Amino acid sequence: MRGSNDWKVPGSDVRLTGQAGGALDGLSFVAKDLFDVAGHPTGGGNPDWPRHRPVPEVHAWAVQTLLDAGADLVGKSITDEISLGLLGENAFDGTPLNPRAPDRVPGGSSSGSASAVARGDCHTALGTDTGGSVRVPASFCGLYGMRTTHGSLPLDGMVPQAPGSDTTGWFARDAATFARVGQALLGRPVPASLPTRLVVAIDAFGFADPGVQAALAPAVAKLGRLIGALREDSMAPQGLSVWGRAQRTLQMAEAWATFGDWVQRDVPRFSFLVARSLMAGSAVSAADLAAAALMRDEVRGRLAHLVPPGTILCLPTTPGPAPRKGLPLREMDRVRDRINCLCAQGGLAGHPQLSLPVAELDGAPIGLSILGARGADLDLIAVARAMALQP
Amino acid sequence: MRGSNDWKVPGSDVRLTGQAGGALDGLSFVAKDLFDVAGHPTGGGNPDWPRHRPVPEVHAWAVQTLLDAGADLVGKSITDEISLGLLGENAFDGTPLNPRAPDRVPGGSSSGSASAVARGDCHTALGTDTGGSVRVPASFCGLYGMRTTHGSLPLDGMVPQAPGSDTTGWFARDAATFARVGQALLGRPVPASLPTRLVVAIDAFGFADPGVQAALAPAVAKLGRLIGALREDSMAPQGLSVWGRAQRTLQMAEAWATFGDWVQRDVPRFSFLVARSLMAGSAVSAADLAAAALMRDEVRGRLAHLVPPGTILCLPTTPGPAPRKGLPLREMDRVRDRINCLCAQGGLAGHPQLSLPVAELDGAPIGLSILGARGADLDLIAVARAMALQP
Repeated sequence: MRGSNDWKVPGSDVRLTGQAGGALDGLSFVAKDLFDVAGHPTGGGNPDWPRHRPVPEVHAWAVQTLLDAGADLVGKSITDEISLGLLGENAFDGTPLNPRAPDRVPGGSSSGSASAVARGDCHTALGTDTGGSVRVPASFCGLYGMRTTHGSLPLDGMVPQAPGSDTTGWFARDAATFARVGQALLGRPVPASLPTRLVVAIDAFGFADPGVQAALAPAVAKLGRLIGALREDSMAPQGLSVWGRAQRTLQMAEAWATFGDWVQRDVPRFSFLVARSLMAGSAVSAADLAAAALMRDEVRGRLAHLVPPGTILCLPTTPGPAPRKGLPLREMDRVRDRINCLCAQGGLAGHPQLSLPVAELDGAPIGLSILGARGADLDLIAVARAMALQP
Repeated sequence: MRGSNDWKVPGSDVRLTGQAGGALDGLSFVAKDLFDVAGHPTGGGNPDWPRHRPVPEVHAWAVQTLLDAGADLVGKSITDEISLGLLGENAFDGTPLNPRAPDRVPGGSSSGSASAVARGDCHTALGTDTGGSVRVPASFCGLYGMRTTHGSLPLDGMVPQAPGSDTTGWFARDAATFARVGQALLGRPVPASLPTRLVVAIDAFGFADPGVQAALAPAVAKLGRLIGALREDSMAPQGLSVWGRAQRTLQMAEAWATFGDWVQRDVPRFSFLVARSLMAGSAVSAADLAAAALMRDEVRGRLAHLVPPGTILCLPTTPGPAPRKGLPLREMDRVRDRINCLCAQGGLAGHPQLSLPVAELDGAPIGLSILGARGADLDLIAVARAMALQP
């Protein structure tokens, strides 16, 4: 499978027509292989996940919601193994093409969903975001993609990873389509008014790779003109790396709580990388877990203060554009750790975050993220739409 | 592949005719998938091992030696992934049948070789033994199988694991065939005279599962009649578990030294079990490694004293018969650790050891091992042949 470039789960073949006359009539979508589609095994990106598991009889909530709104399901898309991964290289199912940068990774874990949309094979795609799994591939593939407020959308029929951080999200190539899908999933219209205060996360921009700040500067300036009241502040006074570590500790410990019984019983096959992450999760001490939980409390307090309703914060979605495919493990670790430092706030605090495809660096896309108050998902979509309309 | 029962490497197909008129004329053999066969990829039991590796152009020394002696190669046999495993369940290639106990594992890592011989599909089979990989499947499948003196046979063209412990071995159903193959590999005839002193390793018998001592008692008594001068002694005054720990520390650290670069570069797929063992190897501290190396010195001194030329020592090859297939990880760990305690002397001290198929327990085979002085490989074969002729 390696190098096949396909976004589709190998061997899968699913097509379902949406309800006629819905708001998403005429749109097609694919679902990450963590979402149940009735009558088809949910692969979870790992050959041993579906073993001993019944084929689902009910669609996942997100799949059913898009079908009810009129969109047609046209496939199941590759995910990193059990959603553990940010690069989108699945050693079993393959690495979906990043059409904007074919020698680079697509980003993960919602790799196939991002690839399918970026290739133009569907209008939108469902993904999940625990530690960055929608935001990262959106940034790397040059797409709109968002992580919703934690707890805002039902996760029924979705393979969990770390329930304290798991969310649903989606991708689109243009802001109008992105907004249509968002309204269907969130069940409310995009507001006409925009937030009125903008915070630029200077620590995050400072942390990013050389050239990122300059590449994103025009988009930040445009955002400033649109929102007004621009000010600079550090997002993470305790340190982005401290936040990153807390998120990784909590997420891996929760992932082990989710998958440990299965691992113990079935002794599954994994990429070395994924096995190592799970083992790290199994080895988290009670003291480290308690410290990470306290840091989460601090992050929640900080973001509630920094990003109240009516304010949005912007930061680079990822430290840079997609790395090239097939990195050795040590380099992969550093890339993963750096991405994690810029994504940790999502899983820790549960705020919504939307990546805008506004820039390129070294010929590859890089996204600018806007982050809002908890529950302000539609405000972010309103900003994305207004940004697209702005010259 | 799981549950296919076949001993043959999936997708492999190899047949080579041996030199006419040799000492092994009329015998067929299979080679564990760690041995190079010219023109065929060496799989190593892992789907990502052959990637980026050239197809061998030369046969491994052991394969060439058997072909030169007139035996016909009739297949490549399944191994545990990169020879890391003692049970013989390969998550990628499948679990070869243990024909003597079909609901139990065949033992590993030379699982397919033992299975092929036990099924009668060939006369003999090449295996490798680092920490028990010939002795264990011989015991579990009811075969003759030996680990040779460390360093006595060239390992050219064999995938290494832990070079300080790696050896070549082979299997047969009967002592006469076993001796013929042994003479061809070791290049000398089996001596007519037998060792004259027998030590019964009471600590090893005491460590074995309930019923093992009684099951093996008739064979031990017969061995006593054959050799004479039977006495009881502890093999491991420091403790079998202390020896086991030292062997595992050294072996896993060496395995990481062998495979670490590949793992870092290609990030391969593994069973969770194998990934975990490699990670354990990567995490061995310098202090633990030094302590294990000192313990190895003690073990060498102990065995040189206990088993000088002319003496053999006997012990149960494994703590019990083969466990059932598909154990959960925790139970698998305990089984593996217990086997390792009875096998550690081989890897630590490099003495030759031969498992005799002399008993059953609960309807499944269990072997009695004889261990000789370094270099006394053929003396052990002489004892095996004499035991088989003895009523």
